Amino acid sequence: MYELTMLQAALADGTADRPVVCEVFARRLSNERRYGVVAGIPRVLEAVKNFRFTEEQLETLTFLDPATLDYLRNYRFSGQIDGYREGELFFPNSPLLTVRGSFGECVLLETVILSIMNSDSAVASAASRMVVAADGRPIIEMGSRRTHEQAAVTAARAAYLAGFESTSNLEAAARYGIPASGTAAHSWTLAHVNDDGSANEKAAFKSQIEAHGVKTTLLVDTFDITQGVNNAIEVAGVELGGVRIDSGNLGAITRRVRKQLDDLGAHNTKIVVSSDLDEFAIAGLRGDPVDVYGVGTSVVTGSGAPTASMVYKIVEVDGHPVAKRSEAKKSVGGAKRALRSYRSSGVAIEEIIFPFDSEEPDTGHLSSKMLTVPLIRDGEIVDKQPSLDESREYLAHSIKTLPWEGLALTRDEPAVHTRYVGFE
Amino acid sequence: MYELTMLQAALADGTADRPVVCEVFARRLSNERRYGVVAGIPRVLEAVKNFRFTEEQLETLTFLDPATLDYLRNYRFSGQIDGYREGELFFPNSPLLTVRGSFGECVLLETVILSIMNSDSAVASAASRMVVAADGRPIIEMGSRRTHEQAAVTAARAAYLAGFESTSNLEAAARYGIPASGTAAHSWTLAHVNDDGSANEKAAFKSQIEAHGVKTTLLVDTFDITQGVNNAIEVAGVELGGVRIDSGNLGAITRRVRKQLDDLGAHNTKIVVSSDLDEFAIAGLRGDPVDVYGVGTSVVTGSGAPTASMVYKIVEVDGHPVAKRSEAKKSVGGAKRALRSYRSSGVAIEEIIFPFDSEEPDTGHLSSKMLTVPLIRDGEIVDKQPSLDESREYLAHSIKTLPWEGLALTRDEPAVHTRYVGFE
Repeated sequence: MYELTMLQAALADGTADRPVVCEVFARRLSNERRYGVVAGIPRVLEAVKNFRFTEEQLETLTFLDPATLDYLRNYRFSGQIDGYREGELFFPNSPLLTVRGSFGECVLLETVILSIMNSDSAVASAASRMVVAADGRPIIEMGSRRTHEQAAVTAARAAYLAGFESTSNLEAAARYGIPASGTAAHSWTLAHVNDDGSANEKAAFKSQIEAHGVKTTLLVDTFDITQGVNNAIEVAGVELGGVRIDSGNLGAITRRVRKQLDDLGAHNTKIVVSSDLDEFAIAGLRGDPVDVYGVGTSVVTGSGAPTASMVYKIVEVDGHPVAKRSEAKKSVGGAKRALRSYRSSGVAIEEIIFPFDSEEPDTGHLSSKMLTVPLIRDGEIVDKQPSLDESREYLAHSIKTLPWEGLALTRDEPAVHTRYVGFE
Repeated sequence: MYELTMLQAALADGTADRPVVCEVFARRLSNERRYGVVAGIPRVLEAVKNFRFTEEQLETLTFLDPATLDYLRNYRFSGQIDGYREGELFFPNSPLLTVRGSFGECVLLETVILSIMNSDSAVASAASRMVVAADGRPIIEMGSRRTHEQAAVTAARAAYLAGFESTSNLEAAARYGIPASGTAAHSWTLAHVNDDGSANEKAAFKSQIEAHGVKTTLLVDTFDITQGVNNAIEVAGVELGGVRIDSGNLGAITRRVRKQLDDLGAHNTKIVVSSDLDEFAIAGLRGDPVDVYGVGTSVVTGSGAPTASMVYKIVEVDGHPVAKRSEAKKSVGGAKRALRSYRSSGVAIEEIIFPFDSEEPDTGHLSSKMLTVPLIRDGEIVDKQPSLDESREYLAHSIKTLPWEGLALTRDEPAVHTRYVGFE
């Protein structure tokens, strides 16, 4: 609402036409993590390009005057957006998006841009730590039921960006081309009762294999895990694709089940584990015979940081840098760009933030990469935006440029420091 | 995905036609809170009633056989749902929803039901604690930017259900009839620079008042709060509606600002505070001259519990109770209903869970209330569902039935215990 009340006042006093620059950044990394992952950029660009008010919506805005309603009726963002690409690492104060246009057109975009970037980046930032912790073993995203029904779809996308292997969410699979994955729940086994009400796990396993082949994954922990594994191999044979375990002390259980499978000759049957896993639990299982992780709640809720703490602030008006001066929230005014410098080994050294219109500063280091790239020009999305798979690969590569301590799961300072160059 | 792979196997072996009962419940209250708030019921009912697969969606499901695709093409839930009404309090193991139908029709609803109930109940449960902490002072929901763009709309709804006064989200206002609220951001003040780039807070205040009248709320902490308050009253006069403070030590600042406003003669000017407030910060300001709270991040993210931990489990097949027996996750099989008993003072004593088809047990207490009500009959929503405002009032009343310790913000046991009666 305040976007619209500000617009009305701005149209009345002429502020609406003033050229301004707004910036998206995060003052800190959630939970003292070492790095964050930028996500949601393609969704932001589409949302900005298509930001419109329908007549039906305008009719609900009864608190606005006719001039403001007319402005909204014809609204179309015609400005410029530059920023970090999707899959880029970020740190405190990284100038993630720089939005240039009139006050009127920029003021309306705060909520939509932040909603998308905060939710997608929160999931991707948490997911990336899980991928690091899994150390090459695949992770399936299965958290749809633990977040809003639409957020589930974009959470699956953000997790895939971060390196998850697949998702249980079919809408995400269809919309974003993410591999889908899913086999059976406990309800499947429990639904196979005999006429007297007694359980019949083997009947459930047999039907699943008949429907989906022996490469399926059978859920073996509905009743007794040892018996479940025996039943699974008895019904499927040693070519069974996998067994899933969704409860208990997963370290001890997977070691026992691996031995049991091997003793039965099912050397290629994989062990899939789930059950409230987060990056710490995943790391804790690194020495155990886990082949695949299934992660739900923790990834879609950002593992303790459900929002990425990004803000959208005006930083320049009519070419003048502006910043609020309230306590404890110091900001540097002025439009900004950023580059990151690297050692010859490819390890990132620091991120240098400089005035948007200045030339790139000399970092004094061997190599550097411009982080700020054009995203929208005159309201249109710049050609050749990277695909989701390209951004996924880009992030996988970027993770390798972090200093070693950047991969630690413990709380500490950001892995890469930001430095302002060229500001007063 | 697993819902659909299970369905395919179930259609092949006949399980799809078996009558089953599924139940939504939470094994525990998030963060050891004392109570939870049921939210999302009307959204669940609409989602179930309208659960369909479009031809476009079916084309993406290339892993399914023709019989399964046909089943989905004609899918329409025709079963029964009973459960707790929206705005009801819940505790561990409360049987929140009881879904009866064939295995095929019930297995497809797990994700959609849980997504809605987990996200809405997480927000409502956190929001309710904030409303209790605010002790009668109004709270504005302003967290849209800190959650997914669609989740923001339903979060505003859940916060209103819990007793929030209004929302900054206009889509929620239009869709659900919630009062909207919003005035100005720091960008408004910062956009009013003089030609030389110097700040002009008074110009910003003047324009806002011209556009929205003196009953508006001016944001006074962009530069210096004392000067901001002076500027606000100088421009608006003593009839100014309110000042908002969005940073700093809010207790000390509000006491100072209240004195300043009173000294200026602005006795009716309200003080609105925001700035990462949660239920604890709200409670901490109880003794300070705060008139209105603005809450963002913490309410839309469930204040440390972004999901309500609800699960959807099969509890009955062909009339036989079923339950998994894995470690540490004991469940009681069989369809259930529940009632809550009260002392003559109206304070809740306990919640009694009993077999769905049994008569109501005698609680031995003066009065009791049936918690399980019919929600869907033969696929159609039961008439006379309560409105959002009715459920909001219902919750406000229900909070008063909690034992005193139920209103504590500290971690502890649930305020009301659940007891099973009539199960083996």
